Amino acid sequence: MAVHPLQSLSRQETELAKDLLLAQHYEELLIFREIYLQEPPKAELVSFLDLEHSGQLTESSPRPARLAKCQYDVVGSDKIPAYHESILDLGACHRIKHEIIGKEHHAALTLSEFDTLVKVCQASKAFQDAISELVIPEGFEVVIEPWPYGGLDIDDENRRYFQGLVFAQDTRNGNPHSNFYAFPLPLIPIMDAEKKEVVRIDRLATGGKGDSLRGKTHSPEVLEHCANAEYVPELLPNGTRKDLKPLHVLQPDGPSFVVKDDSLVEWQKWRFRVSFNPREGAVLHDVRYDGRSVVYRLAVSEMTVPYADARPPFQRKQAFDFGDGGAGNCANNLALGCDCLGVIKYFDSVTVESNGKVKDHPNVVCLHEQDNGIGWKHTNWRTGRAVVTRNRELVVQFIITLANYEYVFAYKLDQAGGITVETRATGIVSCVNIDAGKTSDYGNVVNPGVLAQNHQHVFAIRLDPAIDGQKNTVIQEESHTVPMNKETNPNGNFYEVRQLPFKQSGWADAAPEHNRVFKVVNPGKRNRISGKPVGYKLTPPATQLLLADAKSVQSQRAAFAHHHLWVTKYKDDELYAAGRFTMQSRKEFGGVADAVAREDDVENEDVVIWSVFGLTHNPRVEDWPVMPVEIHQIQFKPSDFFEGNPSIDVPSSSDQMSKEVAKEVCCNGA
Amino acid sequence: MAVHPLQSLSRQETELAKDLLLAQHYEELLIFREIYLQEPPKAELVSFLDLEHSGQLTESSPRPARLAKCQYDVVGSDKIPAYHESILDLGACHRIKHEIIGKEHHAALTLSEFDTLVKVCQASKAFQDAISELVIPEGFEVVIEPWPYGGLDIDDENRRYFQGLVFAQDTRNGNPHSNFYAFPLPLIPIMDAEKKEVVRIDRLATGGKGDSLRGKTHSPEVLEHCANAEYVPELLPNGTRKDLKPLHVLQPDGPSFVVKDDSLVEWQKWRFRVSFNPREGAVLHDVRYDGRSVVYRLAVSEMTVPYADARPPFQRKQAFDFGDGGAGNCANNLALGCDCLGVIKYFDSVTVESNGKVKDHPNVVCLHEQDNGIGWKHTNWRTGRAVVTRNRELVVQFIITLANYEYVFAYKLDQAGGITVETRATGIVSCVNIDAGKTSDYGNVVNPGVLAQNHQHVFAIRLDPAIDGQKNTVIQEESHTVPMNKETNPNGNFYEVRQLPFKQSGWADAAPEHNRVFKVVNPGKRNRISGKPVGYKLTPPATQLLLADAKSVQSQRAAFAHHHLWVTKYKDDELYAAGRFTMQSRKEFGGVADAVAREDDVENEDVVIWSVFGLTHNPRVEDWPVMPVEIHQIQFKPSDFFEGNPSIDVPSSSDQMSKEVAKEVCCNGA
Repeated sequence: MAVHPLQSLSRQETELAKDLLLAQHYEELLIFREIYLQEPPKAELVSFLDLEHSGQLTESSPRPARLAKCQYDVVGSDKIPAYHESILDLGACHRIKHEIIGKEHHAALTLSEFDTLVKVCQASKAFQDAISELVIPEGFEVVIEPWPYGGLDIDDENRRYFQGLVFAQDTRNGNPHSNFYAFPLPLIPIMDAEKKEVVRIDRLATGGKGDSLRGKTHSPEVLEHCANAEYVPELLPNGTRKDLKPLHVLQPDGPSFVVKDDSLVEWQKWRFRVSFNPREGAVLHDVRYDGRSVVYRLAVSEMTVPYADARPPFQRKQAFDFGDGGAGNCANNLALGCDCLGVIKYFDSVTVESNGKVKDHPNVVCLHEQDNGIGWKHTNWRTGRAVVTRNRELVVQFIITLANYEYVFAYKLDQAGGITVETRATGIVSCVNIDAGKTSDYGNVVNPGVLAQNHQHVFAIRLDPAIDGQKNTVIQEESHTVPMNKETNPNGNFYEVRQLPFKQSGWADAAPEHNRVFKVVNPGKRNRISGKPVGYKLTPPATQLLLADAKSVQSQRAAFAHHHLWVTKYKDDELYAAGRFTMQSRKEFGGVADAVAREDDVENEDVVIWSVFGLTHNPRVEDWPVMPVEIHQIQFKPSDFFEGNPSIDVPSSSDQMSKEVAKEVCCNGA
Repeated sequence: MAVHPLQSLSRQETELAKDLLLAQHYEELLIFREIYLQEPPKAELVSFLDLEHSGQLTESSPRPARLAKCQYDVVGSDKIPAYHESILDLGACHRIKHEIIGKEHHAALTLSEFDTLVKVCQASKAFQDAISELVIPEGFEVVIEPWPYGGLDIDDENRRYFQGLVFAQDTRNGNPHSNFYAFPLPLIPIMDAEKKEVVRIDRLATGGKGDSLRGKTHSPEVLEHCANAEYVPELLPNGTRKDLKPLHVLQPDGPSFVVKDDSLVEWQKWRFRVSFNPREGAVLHDVRYDGRSVVYRLAVSEMTVPYADARPPFQRKQAFDFGDGGAGNCANNLALGCDCLGVIKYFDSVTVESNGKVKDHPNVVCLHEQDNGIGWKHTNWRTGRAVVTRNRELVVQFIITLANYEYVFAYKLDQAGGITVETRATGIVSCVNIDAGKTSDYGNVVNPGVLAQNHQHVFAIRLDPAIDGQKNTVIQEESHTVPMNKETNPNGNFYEVRQLPFKQSGWADAAPEHNRVFKVVNPGKRNRISGKPVGYKLTPPATQLLLADAKSVQSQRAAFAHHHLWVTKYKDDELYAAGRFTMQSRKEFGGVADAVAREDDVENEDVVIWSVFGLTHNPRVEDWPVMPVEIHQIQFKPSDFFEGNPSIDVPSSSDQMSKEVAKEVCCNGA
């Protein structure tokens, strides 16, 4: 059977794309960045999906072409790389689109560029001289952690740069996994990526309250007051807890999900496709419940992490973890049993290295079920009969590591028709050196000599709804007090529910004081019971939005982070909340702000919603050395879509394997 | 060993209290309401706990007296019951306090009063006549569901009333658990509790949009257009799902918790006591992590559910589920395997019936562990070494049924020092009859002829902190934009963190746009690493507060529901957010609003915080016939209390029993 249009490119397809590109650019030097599936135009894909769902799909049915999106540098005779993007038709073996991206935008980074930064710094005399101004204790080695440059400063030439955060690792304990973040060094080398040279070394302030923004306050012995802060278990001073008894999840009859074509998932009336790409990580497509369409496409679109330390150059600590280098590229290989429990299905991906070599990127997405407590319960007070069901969820999860930080992204589907996108932030807070005994307005001292800087994490989820079809309307609904009055509210207890549909593309903010929710409805289809249009609802989490001054580069490059909800009219390839090119941007380009500026009609149209939420993170000592997960969820739940609780038919048998323990419960050991 | 002062009264102690009361009121008729532990005055209890924690407690140590709180009616020669409250010293066999509660307040209800309402209605000619005005189809029997009366109307005489919601149950299917809420009848009988007579029958409007607030629009055949809506599995038209495979939680080495004295729980460095009483349900006391005090007492203090249907008499649908009848009294017996998974410990309670008979109330609280996904993770990008731990939680849970509704309350402790209070609302939405084909501004039609009325659920959690000691300060902290300026914010990326301590008792609201959090700190103790006072933080969920007009009885009796956070100075027995007496109240008395009006000094004092949050519930069809859980959480997390992540030492072994499945996963059957 032919490959489904939504399946990620296979290894062979990726190799074919690479070969086609090499042939296209015969005799030019190519440096590969990404090759992955270019999803078909919606009009073609919807036709195909309709055929698929009607059961009438055959081998000879028309199907969208298999297209590869290719991003690469072409190095001309002048040795200067130019960034190209091409789309190849893999069936026809033919290029159908070709763009040479101008210098006003920068390509997303590849991990090989990060490797280059490290090597260039190590070989740089300027850098070694700068290091020798500091006292690096015996047995410590210098670590350079590559970062994107951040937003170009006003006086920066528009060249491609990388910056390196610098730490020292204690090698005296002979353990290569010793935590180097405990020993931050106050300098940031800047590399010109084209010249492959260190062009500048920023010296970092290490002062505290009352010290100036730019002055040097430290002696050469910058690490003297620092201390180890290990997290790998073999280096913990007191070892690990001995009294935690095992808890296993057992599924003796196997999982309740079925996976076909390594992409189609069916579970508890849900049916959807999973794909994976180097930018967004895992994506859900064509999500249906009991055969009815709910969501056309769901993905994490972007995230940005601006740092709030006023001292230059910290304004350039602001990564866009999806646009700058691709979240998918940073996805962890999810080891068995650690990241998920129970019966687990893994999905693999494929990446291309800068020399064109195609590599496996295995176990980047995991699929498993979990129990999330009680689903519903009622006890009939007259008869005493209790009926209770468990809330079983299906989880599609991937985890990304960006230098110090980790983010766990999980799409959760439940038996009551709900879709949840959950993010968990963990990993190591980014930190800088601070003089002994000082505190700072820019963050919190989490270890001697270590200042964890204040920052925010702002996420954007792109959800392309298809509530019983593509033409939907987004409605803002609120509940309001009504003044007591004899005619309509004699006892003052009545409150009014008000609705306001989006007629044009635009934005809105959370307003929990009004119980503001957003409903995506199909105006052409009514719920037979309530008479209201079928729909799903989303309550945007009322989190703080971007704090940086609106005139700042940090703010201007993240316009998406200024509002909680954006509503746009569908446009092919309009996937990225902060636009296609975030590397070194000064201003958001082609993101949601530009999309809504088109003022498209969005009422009863093919709409897309973008949900923005975040975490203002003023680190606490408990976030160190690795932070306990900070969890956020957005929920997309049915709202008069169904004719009753869709999980009413979940069986309520008691769990035979649960055990009661005696009144006095004693544990061995510990 | 003597009983711990925080242990709930045993069966024997309860019997003793009853006997002492009978002796005290020799020759009077007593109708018992409640007998339960009167917790010792804080000054005495803290002294005892200090001794206990110091390891110096002996049999001869001074300990607080065992006191019983007794609530009962005394029926005088005039046959009119008067409501009394007494406190008995069970050791000295002596009454130490006695109050005769005046008529301006009403005692909380007992289930026997509910039984009386049903019998009185069944025997009432007025009620039977009212029923005969309606056509009750063959095979249906009338069901009367007792409710508290709600806030007294302005023209109500101050007598004790009960109201009954009326439904018809389909008995044709021979199943006593058939869902009678699908057949609501439009009348509410009112019983005078003293006279034990139906004194009025309210006729309910059944109209829709455009119909008047009071007119009758229905014919006698009020149930003709209604339809069955079953939830017990044997009555489901299409049966239950057959493709859900079992998921078991196995703890082969037993649980990691230890329980002693049927009240002391130790788990993963946590140590606390659990008690249970008929008003608050489960209560946590003396909560410590690694020997350090965090919380003195934590309980759900009150909740109210006001209905927003403007048509009289629906303004009187407003229960206070803790104050009106006691949440503990309504606690479910948690069957094995259904409400909890894994290894479970149950706690029992004891109740007293109106005739003084002491009964067991078993399995009202369950204790178990659960896995809540990843706790923390970091992958060292240089070495590829990933360290990941699971987030194991300890759950103390109880579930209450109030007529149609269920609420699951869970206290969750995690290994990173966090405390979560989680509420799940489920059960059956309260509904009334609506004419065929109509819709309403007062709710949603969820079944033919069934209108689920709009309402709110507002909860108050009382948390008495003791951060390393009793003297704490509550600080409001926010993060604010700072305008770009050359001196302090040259690149515009800096934001400012501002703190404002509570000096006097008062209230505050959530302000997520400012990332407003509340920190409870011990000003006398600094974190050695950060230099900041040790503390815990709470982010009040920014949910909508009470919507009813401020002049309405609904609003005035629930002043607590007007703000998200209340900060008061500790006062013995000041436990109830809406005051001691909520039954038929017109105005909140002795609740948090009165407490803050004392304008006590609360800076570096023994403070108490009350967290208020809620759900504005405009029912959707999916909430019928039983609603999928609606989940809310408040979190109390350490903030510079510890010197690092307290869960850094949780072991990270992989789960040997998890299994990977093949790329193609097929299920048998289904």
